[in-house]
Amino acid sequence: MATARDTETSKVLELAQPLPLDGGQSLEGVRIAYETHGTLNEARDNAILICHALTGDQYVMSDHPKTGKPGWWVRMVGPGKPIDTDRFFIICANVIGSCMGSTGPASLAPDGKPYGMRFPVITIRDMVRGHIALLDALGIDSLYAVVGGSMGGMQALSLAASFSERARAALVIASTARHSAQNIAFHEVGRQAIMADPDWREGAYYEAKENGGKGPEKGLSVARMAAHITYLSEAGLTEKFGRRLQDRSEKTFGFDADFQVESYLRYQGLSFTDRFDANSYLYITRAMDYFDLAEEHGGMLAKAFARSKARFCLVSFDTDWLYPTSESRNVVHALNAAGLPVSFVELSAPFGHDSFLLDVPALDRVVEGFLGEGR
Amino acid sequence: MATARDTETSKVLELAQPLPLDGGQSLEGVRIAYETHGTLNEARDNAILICHALTGDQYVMSDHPKTGKPGWWVRMVGPGKPIDTDRFFIICANVIGSCMGSTGPASLAPDGKPYGMRFPVITIRDMVRGHIALLDALGIDSLYAVVGGSMGGMQALSLAASFSERARAALVIASTARHSAQNIAFHEVGRQAIMADPDWREGAYYEAKENGGKGPEKGLSVARMAAHITYLSEAGLTEKFGRRLQDRSEKTFGFDADFQVESYLRYQGLSFTDRFDANSYLYITRAMDYFDLAEEHGGMLAKAFARSKARFCLVSFDTDWLYPTSESRNVVHALNAAGLPVSFVELSAPFGHDSFLLDVPALDRVVEGFLGEGR
Repeated sequence: MATARDTETSKVLELAQPLPLDGGQSLEGVRIAYETHGTLNEARDNAILICHALTGDQYVMSDHPKTGKPGWWVRMVGPGKPIDTDRFFIICANVIGSCMGSTGPASLAPDGKPYGMRFPVITIRDMVRGHIALLDALGIDSLYAVVGGSMGGMQALSLAASFSERARAALVIASTARHSAQNIAFHEVGRQAIMADPDWREGAYYEAKENGGKGPEKGLSVARMAAHITYLSEAGLTEKFGRRLQDRSEKTFGFDADFQVESYLRYQGLSFTDRFDANSYLYITRAMDYFDLAEEHGGMLAKAFARSKARFCLVSFDTDWLYPTSESRNVVHALNAAGLPVSFVELSAPFGHDSFLLDVPALDRVVEGFLGEGR
Repeated sequence: MATARDTETSKVLELAQPLPLDGGQSLEGVRIAYETHGTLNEARDNAILICHALTGDQYVMSDHPKTGKPGWWVRMVGPGKPIDTDRFFIICANVIGSCMGSTGPASLAPDGKPYGMRFPVITIRDMVRGHIALLDALGIDSLYAVVGGSMGGMQALSLAASFSERARAALVIASTARHSAQNIAFHEVGRQAIMADPDWREGAYYEAKENGGKGPEKGLSVARMAAHITYLSEAGLTEKFGRRLQDRSEKTFGFDADFQVESYLRYQGLSFTDRFDANSYLYITRAMDYFDLAEEHGGMLAKAFARSKARFCLVSFDTDWLYPTSESRNVVHALNAAGLPVSFVELSAPFGHDSFLLDVPALDRVVEGFLGEGR
């Protein structure tokens, strides 16, 4: 269960200045919800920014206030852990566009009503602009490192490329420098599932929900189910579920969840709708699809890192088919071309893309080793 | 455009006897819509049954009456083609559960109203029982060959296993002897998308549609989009679409189909709803998920073929991640164990699972060669 202490760990920064966006607009009254752990040293040079994934949040270490579950990276972050809070000052901020306290489509627009689809389409770099504003407010000129998996890795790359003076190291796990056609396709299925739900109401469902009505939970649930398949490996699904039946010895010759994998997916879909806003899902997937770091820098990925002096570490997983090793290798080649120090490892793990969140001891060692090198 | 001649090619068999089903029920008044091409010889031993895939139909050679498009396998079937109508008598029947003339959930039940979800859950073997009834009616004791790709391959395997005296050869392309957890998962997403659509009305949408209302077209469209991704390879999607924009030079920073792959998927989804019944999609995907040929035969796949005397040919494609080569190899090992003659080839083709329908000249040669061996 969430406790008072847990919610207290999440702070909110209100930006005094409008946040400029890649789309040409700017966003006023931006709030950024974040957590910090550990202590910023006197030199203010021991800060690590952890960037979260699509449906992640700032609760990297402390219990999630809605689900009561432990923070999403407690296995990696904490006293004596690979990202050691005894040594580093850890910052994790909810990205703009999300729904855990930072400004997003569910937030109130200047007219006092929720933005809904009036929220501007944002990019990964816009999320990073929010992070930079937070670093400014915290008085941190240069991060010891920026770290992230999946969409978090995109933010880490974007920060290292576009705000190169703000980070001395970047650790990019199970990520990519651009969304592939297949990545876009899966996201588009999810968006269409949400937008096909009549309770989506062109994004203006917040009032209906407040009055006891429904939002597009069914559509959001289907979107989550489709995405969830891409987070796991085929072999992992086979090992975890195979064709095993759920609480029954025979097929029912009906449309109940006969198979464990069906039951699991339905649960993943339904439980997601309790903690996530459907419009945020639309906006964040759009930001990911728009992400193409080379395109932002004249079409050459190496150019993106031309002004960087950071050292990099790229990690991929052999069973990750969402952002396969070739995507990480693509980044490594660009960093090599830019003459930057980079280490790269493909780890073997059975969990597919989700490996970056799960029990992969080899990842712990890579993270600890890379962060240790900067001593 | 469909012509009178085209529609004339589709015939309908009405079964006098109820069709027994794996679920324990039996289905009365079954109609089986089918096409034939070529001439049955005097010995009645030159018939080839072609089995269609999930959303396929009997229009293997002639124009589709709804879309006006050429038959789905014109490149393979016809005079002088690998499946040569100058030599063979070709039969292709719409599977039961489908919606192109054979009995399915949109058909009228004995009470004069559409079955909807009162239609019994069927299996791949039940579809094959329909085919066998058709062979009986046509006076064909033994097929020269049964041929199919994807779900058509499942039917070919099922026929060879459960009605072993009825086919002297089986050609199984891009298929599997059982649905994997990942296969089931993708189908479940599609079913949930349909069932989440309020216009699905628990399957009883036919009356609403007849009265000018809607069926679950939005849900069906999302289901088709999700499935379509699995039919293509990641590399194929990248080559075909990459991150290219659709009829625009800049991203719109909105939720239109900016990317070609989005536009393509939306079109695939929408156009599908014009030709396919949502309940049929539920029932046929369920039949595929239930398919496990080993399970039907005591858990040992080799046992499924214990009574067979047929020769087999298995074909897989290197970019097919829906039914990868390992699935075909699994069948080959079982056929080896059963002591049956089997040839097996993995073809290289860029189109993913859809390769069996597309321009892969090597497949033509394999099909022609395998069918030629039986002379």
